[in-house]
Amino acid sequence: MPIATFSEKIAHTLSTIKYGENPPELYEPIRYMMDLGGKRIRPLLTVLAHHLFEDEVDKVLMPAAGVEVFHNFTLMHDDIMDQAPLRRGQETVHEKWNANTAILSGDVMLVKAYELFFGVQPVHLPVVLKLFSRCAAEVCEGQQLDMNFETRTDVSIPEYLKMITLKTAVLLGFALELGAVLGNASEEDRKNLQEFGIKTGIAFQLRDDLLDVYGNAAEFGKLVGGDILAGKKTFLLLTAMEDANEMHRTELKNWLGKTVADPEEKVKAVTAIYDLLEVKAKTETRINTYFHEALQHLDKVNAPLERKEYLRALALSLMERTS
Amino acid sequence: MPIATFSEKIAHTLSTIKYGENPPELYEPIRYMMDLGGKRIRPLLTVLAHHLFEDEVDKVLMPAAGVEVFHNFTLMHDDIMDQAPLRRGQETVHEKWNANTAILSGDVMLVKAYELFFGVQPVHLPVVLKLFSRCAAEVCEGQQLDMNFETRTDVSIPEYLKMITLKTAVLLGFALELGAVLGNASEEDRKNLQEFGIKTGIAFQLRDDLLDVYGNAAEFGKLVGGDILAGKKTFLLLTAMEDANEMHRTELKNWLGKTVADPEEKVKAVTAIYDLLEVKAKTETRINTYFHEALQHLDKVNAPLERKEYLRALALSLMERTS
Repeated sequence: MPIATFSEKIAHTLSTIKYGENPPELYEPIRYMMDLGGKRIRPLLTVLAHHLFEDEVDKVLMPAAGVEVFHNFTLMHDDIMDQAPLRRGQETVHEKWNANTAILSGDVMLVKAYELFFGVQPVHLPVVLKLFSRCAAEVCEGQQLDMNFETRTDVSIPEYLKMITLKTAVLLGFALELGAVLGNASEEDRKNLQEFGIKTGIAFQLRDDLLDVYGNAAEFGKLVGGDILAGKKTFLLLTAMEDANEMHRTELKNWLGKTVADPEEKVKAVTAIYDLLEVKAKTETRINTYFHEALQHLDKVNAPLERKEYLRALALSLMERTS
Repeated sequence: MPIATFSEKIAHTLSTIKYGENPPELYEPIRYMMDLGGKRIRPLLTVLAHHLFEDEVDKVLMPAAGVEVFHNFTLMHDDIMDQAPLRRGQETVHEKWNANTAILSGDVMLVKAYELFFGVQPVHLPVVLKLFSRCAAEVCEGQQLDMNFETRTDVSIPEYLKMITLKTAVLLGFALELGAVLGNASEEDRKNLQEFGIKTGIAFQLRDDLLDVYGNAAEFGKLVGGDILAGKKTFLLLTAMEDANEMHRTELKNWLGKTVADPEEKVKAVTAIYDLLEVKAKTETRINTYFHEALQHLDKVNAPLERKEYLRALALSLMERTS
């Protein structure tokens, strides 16, 4: 089965979900958010993980959709907290409606995400719900750490890696473990798939940090150096701060604390320090290490090679993206 | 067993819940909110409903606590939306910390509420979770309707009753039904207990509307006429608007739209119109009707009279409160 077939099944499933109708002010923002699209990577991970153990994937489509609805719930609430004006190039929910609507629609979205798991076989229900709830709490912990980092000046690289693990990677891990649990995989296979997801997720986020500075701006659809201008503590910045000598560290701090008339000048200056400290190569090395470790976990999974190839290819596509 | 024993068991259970530790910014507001107290009516309803069918109530304490955690989650998020400075006489979470913290701690609280249901017997898990999720979505719908009403001028009494049913009453209904389900009650007993809760909840909310204007101010711990000053569409106001002649309706609208130097004058003037239209007696009649219907549903439940007496007494105490 070509991977597009799996994606089509997911798209179809998402299009059939009935979130609710009344009051429309509550449910319309959910449909708006879900219709903004996205690559639907998380439900695809669930389906592909399940396909390692069973031919029939239809029965995991609803819980897979639950992962996507949960992901979009986190985006809706994160966008309020980050005061983000845009999401996938469109107005965010709190901009198009208001913050109260985004809070409340998000709340009901989390409830709907839970509901999408209720159709799993009763024997799987307790473990699926426990894994999901734990993951959901961890994603919130990651978002809280991310917010804490905004006002801290002493964030270490291990702390940063912990934050992105919670905020981004554990959900990829859960998406994969979910597919494995529902496919009656062994405990060992489940854990290897989860680790494959977590390591891929970390590599994916580091790649995101890298692309913000070194990506193809046109393809990326964002301002180059947005993180630099926002003073965001990315892997690149933390690496630079750690490796810089006193002079360069002071220079970095000065640039980051400065309100500039010419944003391009600031991005250029900070990037020049990154270049000097070989931050790009160091980040790429770290990405490759995580990606390599991820693949080692996938290798250990007891499933047909040709089926694991779907997951390897998907992970690779996440690493090779230039935007 | 005296009712205080049930309450003590609930208080003890709530005190043992581990919400999480790190980051503290995420979990501290949950403990703060839960420690603000409250009458713990909802978990008591679960325990008392269960006690109708089984002697042993310990096994429902965790899910009963889940209802209370969910209730407090809704309060935390509602307080942001309503920009409320105080909750139970203390600073609200978004005031003490900030709105982002209240959003995110609330989110994780909803997850924790779900987790507290996971320990029920596997045979009950699917139905409990479906009923809870449906109730949770309805509570959000009620809050959205309540917000919609703020900017509407044509809210009807049936619409208002629908709103308070969703926002307040269905959770009391769920709390009772939960106890019944876990006590292996018949479908009929479950539904009668749910209706007992819903009708009691509506009566409770109407009583709340009444006390805002006609309650004992000192005991109530709030400003008398707070709803009038806020221009809130309560049962009293909607009844007055419906029953008033053209002159009084215009007078009411003028007072409600007016920014006054002397709040007491406004409350007195609106209350005078209420008095003229016998709004107090009309509201009391409606409260009594709902309360009577509630008790009829309780009467129909197949359980020992002396055990039902706990629920009757609790409902009565909610009706007789003067604050």
